[in-house]
Amino acid sequence: MNIVIIGGDAAGMSAASRIKRAKPDINVVVFEKTKDVSYSACGMPYNIADPSREIDDLIVRPAEVFREKQGIDLRLNHEVTKIDPNKKVVYGVNNNGEFEHPYDKLLIATGARPIRLDIPGNNLPGVFVLKNLQDGREIKRYIEERCVKKAVIIGMGYIALEMCEALVNRGILVQMIKPNPRFLPNFSEEIADKIKQEVLKQGIELYFGNINEIRLYNNRLQVISDDTKLDADMVLMATGVKPNSELAKDIHLETSIKDSIAVDKTFNTSNKDIYAAGDCADTYNVITGKKTYVPLALLANRGGIIAADNMLGKKKSFDGIVGTAVFKVFDLQVAKTGLNVKEAEKYGFEPVAVTIKSSSRAHGHPGAKEILIHMVGDKRSGRLLGAQMVGEEGVAHRINSIAVGLHAKITVKEYFQCDLAYAPPFSPVWDPTLMAARQLLKKM
Amino acid sequence: MNIVIIGGDAAGMSAASRIKRAKPDINVVVFEKTKDVSYSACGMPYNIADPSREIDDLIVRPAEVFREKQGIDLRLNHEVTKIDPNKKVVYGVNNNGEFEHPYDKLLIATGARPIRLDIPGNNLPGVFVLKNLQDGREIKRYIEERCVKKAVIIGMGYIALEMCEALVNRGILVQMIKPNPRFLPNFSEEIADKIKQEVLKQGIELYFGNINEIRLYNNRLQVISDDTKLDADMVLMATGVKPNSELAKDIHLETSIKDSIAVDKTFNTSNKDIYAAGDCADTYNVITGKKTYVPLALLANRGGIIAADNMLGKKKSFDGIVGTAVFKVFDLQVAKTGLNVKEAEKYGFEPVAVTIKSSSRAHGHPGAKEILIHMVGDKRSGRLLGAQMVGEEGVAHRINSIAVGLHAKITVKEYFQCDLAYAPPFSPVWDPTLMAARQLLKKM
Repeated sequence: MNIVIIGGDAAGMSAASRIKRAKPDINVVVFEKTKDVSYSACGMPYNIADPSREIDDLIVRPAEVFREKQGIDLRLNHEVTKIDPNKKVVYGVNNNGEFEHPYDKLLIATGARPIRLDIPGNNLPGVFVLKNLQDGREIKRYIEERCVKKAVIIGMGYIALEMCEALVNRGILVQMIKPNPRFLPNFSEEIADKIKQEVLKQGIELYFGNINEIRLYNNRLQVISDDTKLDADMVLMATGVKPNSELAKDIHLETSIKDSIAVDKTFNTSNKDIYAAGDCADTYNVITGKKTYVPLALLANRGGIIAADNMLGKKKSFDGIVGTAVFKVFDLQVAKTGLNVKEAEKYGFEPVAVTIKSSSRAHGHPGAKEILIHMVGDKRSGRLLGAQMVGEEGVAHRINSIAVGLHAKITVKEYFQCDLAYAPPFSPVWDPTLMAARQLLKKM
Repeated sequence: MNIVIIGGDAAGMSAASRIKRAKPDINVVVFEKTKDVSYSACGMPYNIADPSREIDDLIVRPAEVFREKQGIDLRLNHEVTKIDPNKKVVYGVNNNGEFEHPYDKLLIATGARPIRLDIPGNNLPGVFVLKNLQDGREIKRYIEERCVKKAVIIGMGYIALEMCEALVNRGILVQMIKPNPRFLPNFSEEIADKIKQEVLKQGIELYFGNINEIRLYNNRLQVISDDTKLDADMVLMATGVKPNSELAKDIHLETSIKDSIAVDKTFNTSNKDIYAAGDCADTYNVITGKKTYVPLALLANRGGIIAADNMLGKKKSFDGIVGTAVFKVFDLQVAKTGLNVKEAEKYGFEPVAVTIKSSSRAHGHPGAKEILIHMVGDKRSGRLLGAQMVGEEGVAHRINSIAVGLHAKITVKEYFQCDLAYAPPFSPVWDPTLMAARQLLKKM
């Protein structure tokens, strides 16, 4: 049996490892377009922040280990350009020319690519995106070689904010700009505002307006919007990603949100021998039961493993995600899970929400920090629908208790009855999430 | 309508406040034996650790606020000594002699008291227990007045360990002793051992053996066990608590585990007009469906509120606890929830367990600390039964996601599918609890 995997990052290498562990005799070939496999992409901002670290520190498992210890036929610098689903062959190019390879089962794990704004100058030297390790390498080298003093980041999402902190930590002045005037529009206004104030407090300038062009100006770069001109030594575009689904679309596999490859709960595409997992594929949202697209690392790793099991004929099913995410921005931890009010409305719920202030530690315990929690419930069913939090401590893992509640489809009332941990250094007697549930119950 | 509450701590004052908020016209009388109400008992070790803080900092709401702002008839230094359930009257003593008061509904919220070992010298000056604010006051004063240099703590439970850290932080040399040779017997051996090593690393000496006597010796105290004699300026007995249920037993209310007052899910005792909540009452364990006794703050606060609602005729029900607890000892966070293997066996489950090592942060992220997780599942039903964790960071709130899973009665497999938060500063891609679930699944 021949299993072919296109893409050697989280989903692809998780799948390859899983298959070889279960069935060492199966031939697993991984075609990876770049020269890097299995690295912590999410760690790049923190690595870039620290000049004393090598970007290759982020490699979790080097290619030789996959090849020699795990017996995976891993081929780097191999780009698959075409799938023939009738002959069951993939075609591609490498440094030596063209190649082709037959498959019995195929996994598309091609990931996603950053969206480069379609404006003049989007590809000038010094204009970067950050997605794969090579991007990280180039950014890091550029910062050092050019002694970057000032950067403009286009976008204000998680990666933009993490990179903002990373660059500030290297002594670089940062300005951020994006078209949508709402800062973190998926967060409630109070939560978003607290994060915005933290960013401003760090001396970051935020601009909102249409971006029209990036040009060379006085030997530097200049980002030109409707209202302003921002000079920079370096520009980072962090304006979201789109799935690498072209190979799938070329053979008319079903696609879904944002052109991601549509998969069922076994990660099977609309072709029974072709699976897809990771940032190129869609998934289900457990709360709504509907399709969603979430290019995040845990889902990619999970998807690879479950797709592998199913390619081997084990029936494994994945219910989906609830939309949990966490990031750090300067002194703040920010986390969310589930639906916000707008999403809840869109999916036919009757959302009610509260935002409360609580504390990270008990009354009178020194060092307590404010925690802001926004919680959403469904008035009709009483169900817990989601939460968002921000604070200097005690946020990152607290979101998980809500996430588990969402998976279990509990009500706000049931959440409020949960026996959560209390000790003065870690929490008030009533955990902040319980306080939020209590206030939310009053509106339900 | 007359509502009488015996005891003015967590359960009693939560109930009183709840009643007056809902029905300001109802006459609520609280009889509190001591002169203190509404303080953070759990905060005492941290307050004692810091000579610059007053113990009264721990008072959450002073008596005047309850009286003047909330209209609660709060009577301090009033000890109820007898209940007449036929006449519906309570009798007691105060500084002026005797008193009596009628009730329509009565809440017993008398808490628990620390167990003093029944050995000679258990009450010598300098031998303390720590339960109420007055104990904290006296310990703090004693440490200062006597310039305590060396202390012996009898017991090695949560409070013993918290007080150990508190005393060490004041420069006091601490030795700990208890009869049972297993350190933290409710924790798995590996988890307990990690905590023990941390305590030893801090220079604490641990002794195991029967304690026979405390005596005066060379103007100091001496704790005498089968094997050793430990000199000390001060001795703390932290050997557990027992419910203050005598008032209830005198009138033959049903009692339960450790002589706690038996209550149903509305916190009603076996007398329809008498309720009980807090450390004097029992509760249900959601996982086993059976009675349990858990003298912890959150349950006391909850119990007061739910009892209050039911005394007012609202039908409110409480399913019970899952046994979540967290404490800090020096650099370690320690947390548990649910059943351990022994408890699971006792309640008819077929437990399997794993202990895994994981990390508090992502691969390659600086500052990562080891997290040890022990997880227990039921082989027959697949249910998640409990977990224990220890580590320098990322433990205290992580336990809550397991606790919510226990309330929702999910399986280990369902837990493993949960969408938990990931960002490099806070977690590996697979949250440590997911890693534990994955390993546990292999044994199920």
